[in-house]
Amino acid sequence: MVPNKFDLKSYLKERAQKIEKTLERYFPSEKNYAKRVISAGKYSVFAGGKRIRPILCLAGCEVVGGEWEKILLFAAGIECIHTYSLIHDDLPCMDDDDFRRGKPSCHKAFDEATAILAGDGLQALAFYFFTHPELVKNIKKTRLLKAIHFISKVIGFEGMVGGQMVDLLMEGKKGSLKVIKWIHLNKTTKLIEASVVSGALLGGGTFKELKALSFYGKNLGYAFQIIDDLLDILGDEKELGKKTFSDIKKQKLTYPKLIGIEKTKELAKKYTEKAILALTSFKEKGIPLKSIAEFLLNRVY
Amino acid sequence: MVPNKFDLKSYLKERAQKIEKTLERYFPSEKNYAKRVISAGKYSVFAGGKRIRPILCLAGCEVVGGEWEKILLFAAGIECIHTYSLIHDDLPCMDDDDFRRGKPSCHKAFDEATAILAGDGLQALAFYFFTHPELVKNIKKTRLLKAIHFISKVIGFEGMVGGQMVDLLMEGKKGSLKVIKWIHLNKTTKLIEASVVSGALLGGGTFKELKALSFYGKNLGYAFQIIDDLLDILGDEKELGKKTFSDIKKQKLTYPKLIGIEKTKELAKKYTEKAILALTSFKEKGIPLKSIAEFLLNRVY
Repeated sequence: MVPNKFDLKSYLKERAQKIEKTLERYFPSEKNYAKRVISAGKYSVFAGGKRIRPILCLAGCEVVGGEWEKILLFAAGIECIHTYSLIHDDLPCMDDDDFRRGKPSCHKAFDEATAILAGDGLQALAFYFFTHPELVKNIKKTRLLKAIHFISKVIGFEGMVGGQMVDLLMEGKKGSLKVIKWIHLNKTTKLIEASVVSGALLGGGTFKELKALSFYGKNLGYAFQIIDDLLDILGDEKELGKKTFSDIKKQKLTYPKLIGIEKTKELAKKYTEKAILALTSFKEKGIPLKSIAEFLLNRVY
Repeated sequence: MVPNKFDLKSYLKERAQKIEKTLERYFPSEKNYAKRVISAGKYSVFAGGKRIRPILCLAGCEVVGGEWEKILLFAAGIECIHTYSLIHDDLPCMDDDDFRRGKPSCHKAFDEATAILAGDGLQALAFYFFTHPELVKNIKKTRLLKAIHFISKVIGFEGMVGGQMVDLLMEGKKGSLKVIKWIHLNKTTKLIEASVVSGALLGGGTFKELKALSFYGKNLGYAFQIIDDLLDILGDEKELGKKTFSDIKKQKLTYPKLIGIEKTKELAKKYTEKAILALTSFKEKGIPLKSIAEFLLNRVY
């Protein structure tokens, strides 16, 4: 059910709060010798963040008629994966970023070893959530296993990990539009697409619905990373919670570098429009996903 | 079926070969931009190794009457997890080990960023294997989800990751027997226990069988790590494929340090005996697991 006047702000707030409550409730307790690494994981998970990926997962469930409250643990697991990837990406030997979500990066607040382990622990925790009895009891097991399989593929060698590798390898190098699109696809787009599609899979979506949402997610994911590249140049450090011009300093391969700011803006708009077009068949029920796409296009953080 | 004259050597060889063939068959192809990180993952996975954890998984399946060939993908996933943990443990900010399995460690053969990403990719690949359609079709889904849940718990904050954290934190510090047992339990024992128990879970084991195997696995795991500590002092670098006296250099908390070599040897023997005792109810079918425990006690690598 989508209310006549859709209020995106309270929609996002409600979902983010529920996701955070789920994370709090199921996060391992800091009451043992390993307190330090659990604290580091918590530090990064609860440092704020838009919670866009888990929100997309819940929205994917709802748009196909599923009950989103029933898959909160799955959505929370996706946020653990996203946070682990940020912690590892920020490491000195990777992107070497000292700030994240307005606070010192995990390896700055703790140390490198703790940050690597916190990331590792968060990846494991994601799959612990994905297979938690409290989730399993709500979902058809065949669909759940398919969703986990999909996520594990898009975050691995043939997805996020591969994308981050090539992102690093292309620093300071000349790259083509083909390469940058490949990096964006793997580093960012695939997990965003998988977030919404896995939600729909768990919510009982049909093949046709999953296909439409895959198209939505892919285009949204491209738009998202392109806007990320733009914000590195046009954004405000305070709003972003991280340093601007960091891509330029690191000589990262970005769209603004290849085609200029104006053309990059047009491209983000084009991808967003394509994403929204994919929602046509959902009619009114597609309003939240449409609003999210518009919000991400115009975001300042 | 256990042959009258049990030949452990060919048993281990056959299983290890099948596990390696499975890894080869399902490992992502190196034919894309992310070749480097896939090569790094392959480099470490195919650097040799005893394949003890996946072999225990297969043996756990077989001892309860399951067909071990049907769960090869699950066993292969366990080896991916073990290899990822070695890659990350060897990093300069962790144990700083330059050699592993007789070859330069992953970060030496490649670089730190690639090694971190290769480890991350291997962890994701494990869960990709655990939920692979070729495995799912062979196994009761409820049992498969339980097994994945178990593994994801023992490798996370409340298991392997937590154990490695405390192992690092205790370097150069005075520690009690209670602390070192906690480290061994989390760093090593839990995954070894989970390997054999998950195999039995997938093979259709009863609650009573799982309980006996949990007891076997836990005691075997303790013995395993204690022998590891001993080999750091008594072992041969060539046989081990890594530097000896590295625990002493790093002022690691070990049993030999706390109670001396002789008492440590006795302890390993005691744990092995307890492990074997847990197999009583399996009668003849328990011979492979018994032989593995004896082999690990007397191993030189």
